[in-house]
Amino acid sequence: MTGHFFEGAEKLLEIWFATSENELGKATTHNDLRNIPRDIIEEVLSLVNCKVLKYAQSATTDTYVLSESSMFVFQTHFILKTCGETTLLHAVQPMLDLARDYCGFDIVDQIFYSRRKFLRPELQKAPHTSFEHEVAYLDSIFEGGSAYVLGRTNVDCWYLYTLDKTCVGTKSDQTLEIIMTDLDPEKMKIFYQEYTSSAAEATKKAGIDKLFPNAKIFDYLFDPCGYSMNGLLPDGHYFTIHITPEPEFSYVSFETNASYSQYQELTRKILQMFNPGKFTTTIFGGTAATSLDGQRKLFHFSDYGRVDHQIVCLVDHDLIYSYYKKHPS
Amino acid sequence: MTGHFFEGAEKLLEIWFATSENELGKATTHNDLRNIPRDIIEEVLSLVNCKVLKYAQSATTDTYVLSESSMFVFQTHFILKTCGETTLLHAVQPMLDLARDYCGFDIVDQIFYSRRKFLRPELQKAPHTSFEHEVAYLDSIFEGGSAYVLGRTNVDCWYLYTLDKTCVGTKSDQTLEIIMTDLDPEKMKIFYQEYTSSAAEATKKAGIDKLFPNAKIFDYLFDPCGYSMNGLLPDGHYFTIHITPEPEFSYVSFETNASYSQYQELTRKILQMFNPGKFTTTIFGGTAATSLDGQRKLFHFSDYGRVDHQIVCLVDHDLIYSYYKKHPS
Repeated sequence: MTGHFFEGAEKLLEIWFATSENELGKATTHNDLRNIPRDIIEEVLSLVNCKVLKYAQSATTDTYVLSESSMFVFQTHFILKTCGETTLLHAVQPMLDLARDYCGFDIVDQIFYSRRKFLRPELQKAPHTSFEHEVAYLDSIFEGGSAYVLGRTNVDCWYLYTLDKTCVGTKSDQTLEIIMTDLDPEKMKIFYQEYTSSAAEATKKAGIDKLFPNAKIFDYLFDPCGYSMNGLLPDGHYFTIHITPEPEFSYVSFETNASYSQYQELTRKILQMFNPGKFTTTIFGGTAATSLDGQRKLFHFSDYGRVDHQIVCLVDHDLIYSYYKKHPS
Repeated sequence: MTGHFFEGAEKLLEIWFATSENELGKATTHNDLRNIPRDIIEEVLSLVNCKVLKYAQSATTDTYVLSESSMFVFQTHFILKTCGETTLLHAVQPMLDLARDYCGFDIVDQIFYSRRKFLRPELQKAPHTSFEHEVAYLDSIFEGGSAYVLGRTNVDCWYLYTLDKTCVGTKSDQTLEIIMTDLDPEKMKIFYQEYTSSAAEATKKAGIDKLFPNAKIFDYLFDPCGYSMNGLLPDGHYFTIHITPEPEFSYVSFETNASYSQYQELTRKILQMFNPGKFTTTIFGGTAATSLDGQRKLFHFSDYGRVDHQIVCLVDHDLIYSYYKKHPS
């Protein structure tokens, strides 16, 4: 590969905090990550090589649209998702320090660091040059880290680092992530300024505004192409979409913590919206919340063959990874 | 680590063949891997750096106890398991050639190459210096190879290479493998010539002769320590045990293709026999044969915590990987 390239594949970090100050690690209003001043958050983001493009708040969530993807800050956890050649893991130690100093969070309750295999790992900066290096970096900060590889190491795969521990805080969260490649160039045209005059227009043309009719949407259309959006839903739910439309390295990601029962239908809508050649779904759920077996029978999509299907039972979560490929037409 | 060391962890290769000569790839008496002359098999084994210590035949199976582990040859598939610094993958291309020339097998129906993470990978010879190198070696021979990592890459893990294809031949086979480390030094004493005068005595003292009362056992006690056995059972079933008893790097493996319904009870007996500090179980089964869900509920062992549990759905097989650690006493 030569010429222009952009690594759409995001590094995705989620850290949950607790405090030993209060019974059972329950957080009080003092224990709130949203107490960290916004300019301090922006300083941390500059270490990662990200700028804030849009910022908004709801009763439960601070949301940032970034020059490279997104950040969400909740009371006891945050999500940072950055693409391109960003150095996301440089945010880990500063965020631990800020969570302790500003919010009294002295316990890291859980961490999830994940990403897809990069298209061009040789362009990444340390410690992101290999999963091995990323794991060594995280192992130098955390005890009891567990590193997993899902999918096929010689084809497409997805990496996860998490802590082998029982969480003291909330366990009821769930996440669906859909990572798509080889996207339909016709569908991708929407995300070029040449064809679409504003982020709001792109959101509408693609039908993103109809995914969750009650969402507050914060969107951004890049010059000359590319798109990011954060959507805030009631009850601390969110969704976020990031689009790298160039046909040579097209990439779209969708992520939400909406309730599990919506995942089948959401996935159908997303596939219709972007028509990818290949995609992976990763679902995290509390072991009680997810019925793995129903899961295995559901999640068949008529135009796609499920090439890989793996289930990982973690301490407090089950993880379901599937890789789909479009049937030859 | 310094001084004497032996890598007990085996490389495990299983290749299934079929033929395009006959309808549906069904094998005839001409299509039989046991037609390959024994001295030719020994030549291939010398490429791997293994010698034959014992050889025997049953109606269904040729069995070899090797200087480093075991070989089993059946009509349409063979199993080669070699430990230490052997170069098992050097046997792949020669075996494909022999299967074609002596048995008319022109189709590789399926391959399984697997191993645990080595204790000392730096002592291995190419292409076994890393899983990445092994995968590249296999990818140069096979199309559609899929490489998986089960367990935690930064702690203990287990590697698998297999072909992403529907088999034309038999699909009804199943396998249980138990890989044990940190073994009870008292139990391991049996496998030293200092304490035990013959292989037969070791087999009896450990109770290996009682695992399958109808087995024909071929066993070997190494000088000064170490033990290998192959057991032939009716209907092409087998079991095999390999023991590296030295406390600094103790390792025991058990493997069988006996029927799935026996696995829970067999695992209990094996744990009682060797009392490992840690062990993994890997179970391969036809997707119809294994009830994954029953599986998840079963296979709890009172002295052990299940640290990892993963399920991989392959084209014709389900694979269940579990990693157990003894509770602190």
